[in-house]
Amino acid sequence: MPIVEAHILEGYTPEEKSRLTTALTDAIRLVVPASDEAVTVMIHEMAPDNYARGGKPRSPAPALPDPKQIAHDFLAAMEKRDLATAKAMLAPGFRMTFPGTAQMATLDELIAWARDRYRFVRKTITSTEAFHKDGAAVVYVSGTLSGEWPDGTPFEGIRFIDRFEIEDGKLATQDVWNDIAEERGA
Amino acid sequence: MPIVEAHILEGYTPEEKSRLTTALTDAIRLVVPASDEAVTVMIHEMAPDNYARGGKPRSPAPALPDPKQIAHDFLAAMEKRDLATAKAMLAPGFRMTFPGTAQMATLDELIAWARDRYRFVRKTITSTEAFHKDGAAVVYVSGTLSGEWPDGTPFEGIRFIDRFEIEDGKLATQDVWNDIAEERGA
Amino acid sequence: MPIVEAHILEGYTPEEKSRLTTALTDAIRLVVPASDEAVTVMIHEMAPDNYARGGKPRSPAPALPDPKQIAHDFLAAMEKRDLATAKAMLAPGFRMTFPGTAQMATLDELIAWARDRYRFVRKTITSTEAFHKDGAAVVYVSGTLSGEWPDGTPFEGIRFIDRFEIEDGKLATQDVWNDIAEERGA
Amino acid sequence: MPIVEAHILEGYTPEEKSRLTTALTDAIRLVVPASDEAVTVMIHEMAPDNYARGGKPRSPAPALPDPKQIAHDFLAAMEKRDLATAKAMLAPGFRMTFPGTAQMATLDELIAWARDRYRFVRKTITSTEAFHKDGAAVVYVSGTLSGEWPDGTPFEGIRFIDRFEIEDGKLATQDVWNDIAEERGA
Amino acid sequence: MPIVEAHILEGYTPEEKSRLTTALTDAIRLVVPASDEAVTVMIHEMAPDNYARGGKPRSPAPALPDPKQIAHDFLAAMEKRDLATAKAMLAPGFRMTFPGTAQMATLDELIAWARDRYRFVRKTITSTEAFHKDGAAVVYVSGTLSGEWPDGTPFEGIRFIDRFEIEDGKLATQDVWNDIAEERGA
Amino acid sequence: MPIVEAHILEGYTPEEKSRLTTALTDAIRLVVPASDEAVTVMIHEMAPDNYARGGKPRSPAPALPDPKQIAHDFLAAMEKRDLATAKAMLAPGFRMTFPGTAQMATLDELIAWARDRYRFVRKTITSTEAFHKDGAAVVYVSGTLSGEWPDGTPFEGIRFIDRFEIEDGKLATQDVWNDIAEERGA
Repeated sequence: MPIVEAHILEGYTPEEKSRLTTALTDAIRLVVPASDEAVTVMIHEMAPDNYARGGKPRSPAPALPDPKQIAHDFLAAMEKRDLATAKAMLAPGFRMTFPGTAQMATLDELIAWARDRYRFVRKTITSTEAFHKDGAAVVYVSGTLSGEWPDGTPFEGIRFIDRFEIEDGKLATQDVWNDIAEERGA
Repeated sequence: MPIVEAHILEGYTPEEKSRLTTALTDAIRLVVPASDEAVTVMIHEMAPDNYARGGKPRSPAPALPDPKQIAHDFLAAMEKRDLATAKAMLAPGFRMTFPGTAQMATLDELIAWARDRYRFVRKTITSTEAFHKDGAAVVYVSGTLSGEWPDGTPFEGIRFIDRFEIEDGKLATQDVWNDIAEERGA
Repeated sequence: MPIVEAHILEGYTPEEKSRLTTALTDAIRLVVPASDEAVTVMIHEMAPDNYARGGKPRSPAPALPDPKQIAHDFLAAMEKRDLATAKAMLAPGFRMTFPGTAQMATLDELIAWARDRYRFVRKTITSTEAFHKDGAAVVYVSGTLSGEWPDGTPFEGIRFIDRFEIEDGKLATQDVWNDIAEERGA
Repeated sequence: MPIVEAHILEGYTPEEKSRLTTALTDAIRLVVPASDEAVTVMIHEMAPDNYARGGKPRSPAPALPDPKQIAHDFLAAMEKRDLATAKAMLAPGFRMTFPGTAQMATLDELIAWARDRYRFVRKTITSTEAFHKDGAAVVYVSGTLSGEWPDGTPFEGIRFIDRFEIEDGKLATQDVWNDIAEERGA
Repeated sequence: MPIVEAHILEGYTPEEKSRLTTALTDAIRLVVPASDEAVTVMIHEMAPDNYARGGKPRSPAPALPDPKQIAHDFLAAMEKRDLATAKAMLAPGFRMTFPGTAQMATLDELIAWARDRYRFVRKTITSTEAFHKDGAAVVYVSGTLSGEWPDGTPFEGIRFIDRFEIEDGKLATQDVWNDIAEERGA
Repeated sequence: MPIVEAHILEGYTPEEKSRLTTALTDAIRLVVPASDEAVTVMIHEMAPDNYARGGKPRSPAPALPDPKQIAHDFLAAMEKRDLATAKAMLAPGFRMTFPGTAQMATLDELIAWARDRYRFVRKTITSTEAFHKDGAAVVYVSGTLSGEWPDGTPFEGIRFIDRFEIEDGKLATQDVWNDIAEERGA
């Protein structure tokens, strides 16, 4: 039965508002055992003229970009080895952690390191999840890897999960877990 | 600036309402680039007498238990090999996926399989994240593993991440990724 | 989907608030093609301290009595020929209209006139409907009559409908239609 | 003092919203002894983008047609013996009950039966009342009948009341009471 | 933290709504020790179709003119001795009180009386304050006077304060205090 | 017709809420030409549990004391020459301006200066007005003075107006205008 009303400044797109109603519905359902059908969300948009904090009108900030899309775009760029695009998506201070090696700070490091692990790798994404935490969007992308080992043998169906933190639309961290060592060692 | 009002039936504890305001604040911040300070949440509680859907009053369902707590309790029970407690936390149809083996359905299977992988393992949890998705609470627990290999050699600092789905307070799935094979094989 | 919020001063009983939520649900459904389930009503009660019109607090007036109950009580009193009770329920200026006779103003007139129509009459009520119109509650009571004609022959199953206007808890008008003449003349 | 807020999807006409505010005002006044002036109704219209139940946007259904108008149109068509129009207004399963005869299901039955009761009849409507009950609009139309008896003698001023149930804009039932037998038998 | 929502009929200008949000923010801060930043005001505008009191729609009245502007315009007209303009700004029954003389009712009286006090006077306004009280806007204008005494000696920096009551956009009263006698007598 | 809703944390007294509803009613009426009767104010109080900004609950600050009362208490203390009480009411940096002398910072200065102006003075207060401006409460107190000149001659009916700024319950400024010089010089 919960009913949620969100008052925001006008200017968001239908897609952005849809992301917002979904997030608010999920927020309720984390605590209240209501079926999806039982959660109603109303967004009340206000013209900037009709809102004041501290007696002063405010302008709506542009919505944050969809963090799931950002994660997907980054993974696609990396898969194509389109490093220019991928690098442009990184926040200053970006750091990534992959299985079996120290933390890395640049994509070049990553590519150098990966060379010994596989000839190439493709991701089949089966799940993408996003939520907000402490000022950043957190995105989990999971699925399976396929590709070729350094000796050319193909592999497939290896489980992976990537965790991204995205701040102001830029990737701040990437943490990767997968079963490559399980399979490789098998 | 967003202001969120949630209308719920009365009967939730301060801790439950706190989880709700946090979840709603995070929901807003997934889309609207507001600082935490700029998001206001008001919960309006109603007596059951004061609410009707379809002309009929409704009773508030008890809040869902904190899914982070459930995941922590399960991991603690498993670490202590308190299988009675751990089994009581599983939903019918529970299934779990660990690195390097097929999907398992019972804790006994898990324990039998793990025997060859390590003598024991301890989890140091550094992050727990929870959100709602498609009727279930999803919880991610990550951190590092320490313990002893089957030959008694100690290990520590091995990264892991567990993903749980929790339905109606019971664990429906556990998916585990970690760097054990990386380390063991090293 | 409509959601109705009613702000009232606190002090109404659960039964009174239930009548209110039903009436508001019905009001919506007269215009909006929503199923009963899809209409949500929230009553927000305010302490008198928390409400001001014209800068002055107001006290809640006692709820109006249930007009259906008033109509039923009046009909029961008349059926028992408990005229003292029935008369006490009439507003000044009460008038009633029955089939085949001029408008009457007193219950004594009614009883004198009815003497030639039947020895006694019992009402089996199958439907009672109430709504508000122009400052009065309107109640329709319908069902069937049974009793004995002046010659002692019994009758039953004769359709009737009574319309009452109730102002400030008192009966202002009673208009009666029935099939007595159809049956008697048959 | 009651203040009513109704949240609906946008798309209703001023006339439809006026019917809604009237119905909500009447709903309040059935329970709360406020003068008409003291009841405030605010309708908040939302774009479909701004509303979600179960995380999904909804489209506004077209408003229900005015049930008073439907009843009047039907009575006018019957008075003109415009049976094509009148039949098109009936719901499947329509049934009607008139004084002194069994329940009828078709207008043709009605017309055949009425032939012996009067040459023609005209309705002078003095009151029309509508409200919602259990998924249907209920309309009461009352006033007086005039016309000619089968022998050509004129009559007038005979009281009648018709009760209609209207579902999804179609007439489901018509129940008629009047004083024809009183007058005819006089 | 207070959040204020004002529901008004649509039709007010941004400037008028800005005056409203300022006044509401100040109203809160007269009682609640919140910083300006902590007071949020939302204005919800309704189309006349969407509002009914007593079941009837209402039209928005034009906003009241800014009382500070009225006071400034009147003082400017008087300073220029533009009596036609100034007189047009007075309400019937206008009365004014100046230091050291009886209450006056016309600007001509004022000008005759002032002739002995100074050759001319200019106002330097340093503060203008407005609020509403008992059906009138009250405006305080304060600052310093400069000009020439009747003998041609110049003066300046003499403190003054004027209090105006403005009803329906017209000046009802003017009460003046200043230090002219202090200075003149010095 | 304006309807104002103020959401505040619970904990204010009826008297404090009454000051709030009055201030909000006056705020509306400064801009919207509604009669007092036409302005409705609803205060919605929330338990601290039910409110969060930035995901954290907040405690209600105690209401600000009534600034009119503070001004009256200060004037009464000064009239009684109860300097201990009066001094305790001053904010650091207090300054006062009286007719015909330089700005003063202490009550002792004031009393020394006043000794030459009158033996004693009594205030008859006819109007007290308070509003909020830029973080301070502004209070205007006006009326007439009576007392004795230094030579013992009595005086009365001399107009005065005092303007106070009150910050956090302490007097920050006092500005005084009156007609003493007009009268004394007459």
